[in-house]
Amino acid sequence: MNFPIIIYIIGYVLKIEGLLMLIPTMVGAIYGEGVYFWYLVCAVATFVLGFLLSFKKPKNQVFYAKEAFVSVPLCWLFMSIFGSLPFIFSGEIPHFVDAFFEMVSGFTTTGSSILSDVEALSHASLFWRSFSHWIGGMGILVFILTVLPITGGATMHLMKVESPGPQVEKVVPKIKDTSTMLYIIYTAMTVLQIIILIIGNTPIFDAVTLSFGTAGTGGFVVKNSGIADYSAFAQYVIAIFMILFGVNFNVYVLIVRKHLRQALRYEEARWYTLIIAISVALITVNTLQLFPTVEEAFRHALFQVGSIITTTGYATFDFSKYYPQFSQTILLLLMFIGACAGSTGGGIKVTRVTIMLKTVRDELARIIHPRAVKKVRSEGKVVEASVVRTINIFLLAYIAVFITALLIVSLDKYDFTTNFSAVAATINNIGPALGEAGPYSNFGGFSDISKLVFCFNMLAGRLEILPFLVLINPKTWSHPFKNRLKVK
Amino acid sequence: MNFPIIIYIIGYVLKIEGLLMLIPTMVGAIYGEGVYFWYLVCAVATFVLGFLLSFKKPKNQVFYAKEAFVSVPLCWLFMSIFGSLPFIFSGEIPHFVDAFFEMVSGFTTTGSSILSDVEALSHASLFWRSFSHWIGGMGILVFILTVLPITGGATMHLMKVESPGPQVEKVVPKIKDTSTMLYIIYTAMTVLQIIILIIGNTPIFDAVTLSFGTAGTGGFVVKNSGIADYSAFAQYVIAIFMILFGVNFNVYVLIVRKHLRQALRYEEARWYTLIIAISVALITVNTLQLFPTVEEAFRHALFQVGSIITTTGYATFDFSKYYPQFSQTILLLLMFIGACAGSTGGGIKVTRVTIMLKTVRDELARIIHPRAVKKVRSEGKVVEASVVRTINIFLLAYIAVFITALLIVSLDKYDFTTNFSAVAATINNIGPALGEAGPYSNFGGFSDISKLVFCFNMLAGRLEILPFLVLINPKTWSHPFKNRLKVK
Repeated sequence: MNFPIIIYIIGYVLKIEGLLMLIPTMVGAIYGEGVYFWYLVCAVATFVLGFLLSFKKPKNQVFYAKEAFVSVPLCWLFMSIFGSLPFIFSGEIPHFVDAFFEMVSGFTTTGSSILSDVEALSHASLFWRSFSHWIGGMGILVFILTVLPITGGATMHLMKVESPGPQVEKVVPKIKDTSTMLYIIYTAMTVLQIIILIIGNTPIFDAVTLSFGTAGTGGFVVKNSGIADYSAFAQYVIAIFMILFGVNFNVYVLIVRKHLRQALRYEEARWYTLIIAISVALITVNTLQLFPTVEEAFRHALFQVGSIITTTGYATFDFSKYYPQFSQTILLLLMFIGACAGSTGGGIKVTRVTIMLKTVRDELARIIHPRAVKKVRSEGKVVEASVVRTINIFLLAYIAVFITALLIVSLDKYDFTTNFSAVAATINNIGPALGEAGPYSNFGGFSDISKLVFCFNMLAGRLEILPFLVLINPKTWSHPFKNRLKVK
Repeated sequence: MNFPIIIYIIGYVLKIEGLLMLIPTMVGAIYGEGVYFWYLVCAVATFVLGFLLSFKKPKNQVFYAKEAFVSVPLCWLFMSIFGSLPFIFSGEIPHFVDAFFEMVSGFTTTGSSILSDVEALSHASLFWRSFSHWIGGMGILVFILTVLPITGGATMHLMKVESPGPQVEKVVPKIKDTSTMLYIIYTAMTVLQIIILIIGNTPIFDAVTLSFGTAGTGGFVVKNSGIADYSAFAQYVIAIFMILFGVNFNVYVLIVRKHLRQALRYEEARWYTLIIAISVALITVNTLQLFPTVEEAFRHALFQVGSIITTTGYATFDFSKYYPQFSQTILLLLMFIGACAGSTGGGIKVTRVTIMLKTVRDELARIIHPRAVKKVRSEGKVVEASVVRTINIFLLAYIAVFITALLIVSLDKYDFTTNFSAVAATINNIGPALGEAGPYSNFGGFSDISKLVFCFNMLAGRLEILPFLVLINPKTWSHPFKNRLKVK
């Protein structure tokens, strides 16, 4: 393991985080909140520590997959720890586990909260929470790749580990160019949403923070009523932008490069749209009796479906309480499907689900016609056996983490619905669960142990399970020579 | 598709079922119950129909995997339909869907019931329900293979489809010899249990029916109180025999052939024992405060764990009501693991679970040491990639059926815990669920649609998912010539 380079990368990440914390500092100063002082202190401290760690560029720049698999989860862990310091020092969230939970939830774009009253927070802290969604949405390392001065395999390996999709498509020849283009698209869409919301008479602070949460598919809100009290116009805008941010960004790259036809034929985006359409239709019909007009039933269905499938987690009303069981079950299933690969959303991802279903369909056909060898195709290309294998490993690891978490959390006082959906909501980076941890409740009632389990879920889920399992696998840390002997 | 031979096999199965129905007829006659008349009528009718269908041995004995994949599920379907006739005609379960549900639950060794008062049934019907567990436990076709006068690939193909394990091990050279030996062991163990129970002062009728349910890992009881009112001795005997019947029968074949050392080293059986030991220990500690003595806590934990992991479904008390959430969650997870492959139990099976976990472990090691190529091993042998692939397909198909069932069932009036656990309890052939369908409740409150979904789950689960999916796949039934054109 090349430790110097791992420490160097962590240092670089902290340096950038320190700089980013200056923005909530300014927000606090603008609103004349005393809390800005603590943001400034934490920003400087984080920056200085990061500066010291990344002061000397390591000579040995050898960087394999294992270095990436260790450094990426460590970066996310350190970012979350340092990001939670202002909450603790300012006394706004004094308990460490709570502050850490809140920040992990922010960076992983989950949006689960331990706060029962968000309106009690300062503007600086509300901004920092929502801003962490925006930072985490695209991936902090993808951002750093545009500035990181190391060469070799590092960029590719890092991006592979952090990328939310099953494969990094080389859309443009150089990775740095790709990540720059992705960030431009991401920023442009966020700004567009802010402008539209402001035009629709949403207060500026709300428009900015809600757009951050939408773009990163996060879900932190600035009002205790969630999205319920905003205008129908704002609700439609947010719903549509949530769905747009859940689309594979390759589609937007294709559009920018004027390959409109290819973009429209993008298979994953079409499945994604189809799943949304069917779910909205079913829930609208299932909930007609709850609302005075069809429009309202449709709007709430569209909003909730868009919010859950993209793993954002905003809510316009308490679906965990008022939706019938059928609609709740649909939402619970959407939690697992998640958004498109290569989007800012979490979950298992639409591509993985469709590839899995296709392998089953082909197996059934193979039994009847053993000689008809068919290959599973995705986006028109044959899916390699190794990709199918990786997806299966992902699914198994995912189930293993899910079950372990469910068992530990069940030691708490809640019922099965709450436990199961809370694990699903954190591992898929959604935010609100059902039952006692629904959209208008919070995770504050769980024990510290459960909260740490949820933190693990959120981080593992955001990095697609395997990196965090590699990090905590004792074999990763055993002496390399010992390991070499064991290899057969 | 070779339809004549499929019809011939179905006819043969019905003929045997007709003969088997004479046994409950005799039980009814012994107890002087008028219902015996209906059993006689149905036995004769089923036999005659079977006789007519299998009157002429088909000339074309070509029998491929597809014929097996279609005929095995059809046999189970017809057996269940004809088996439910006495319930309907006698008026003991007059509604067809209910009677069908009860019989599917019997043959698939699930043990879920729609009856709220089993003690109202005649002895003949109680016997027939429990006897169907015993018939279904080892697989009706395995039984028929010992007598079926067709040659060629038929036996192997049929056994592969019906076998509860992931692979049919050629324990002894000829398959017919294997199935004969399996039935001898199965019968001997059942008789042994009956004798021990009778020695322990259990009434003879109860000893026989409960042993049928134990051997087949079924779970139908003859008292409304389940197993609660039997002596502690009887509870221990049943618990131990449940666990014994959940062991891979290859272990017993090895013991019979005096390979004791090999039998003790059988990997799956060791994992199975370990899982049981840990679960019993955790639940005992977790439920100490519920019982006056440690012995009682231990006995109930042992019984419930043995009952659930082997997918039997007996209960000594209402764990869905009184066990804490942690213990309930353990039981719910055991539902999915299930018993050993090659036993009479259902579920995903211990081998599959361990192979899945090993593939994840190896993937984690591979990331760190890419050149250390390790093969997944099971029972000391390398697991072929094709086996891993089949297991993955199984898991995906399993999840797909599970989700579809959950969605349909959620249209009913019950909560998520009930729906989720009821789907789990039927697809894994367990019997009782949690919530409103717990061990001292029943499935009678569900709608007919949900009941039919549960029937599908039970049948699909018993035959390990794929056969029933092949049966309902439209492509299986499309014209062969049309298909040949489509093949690329």
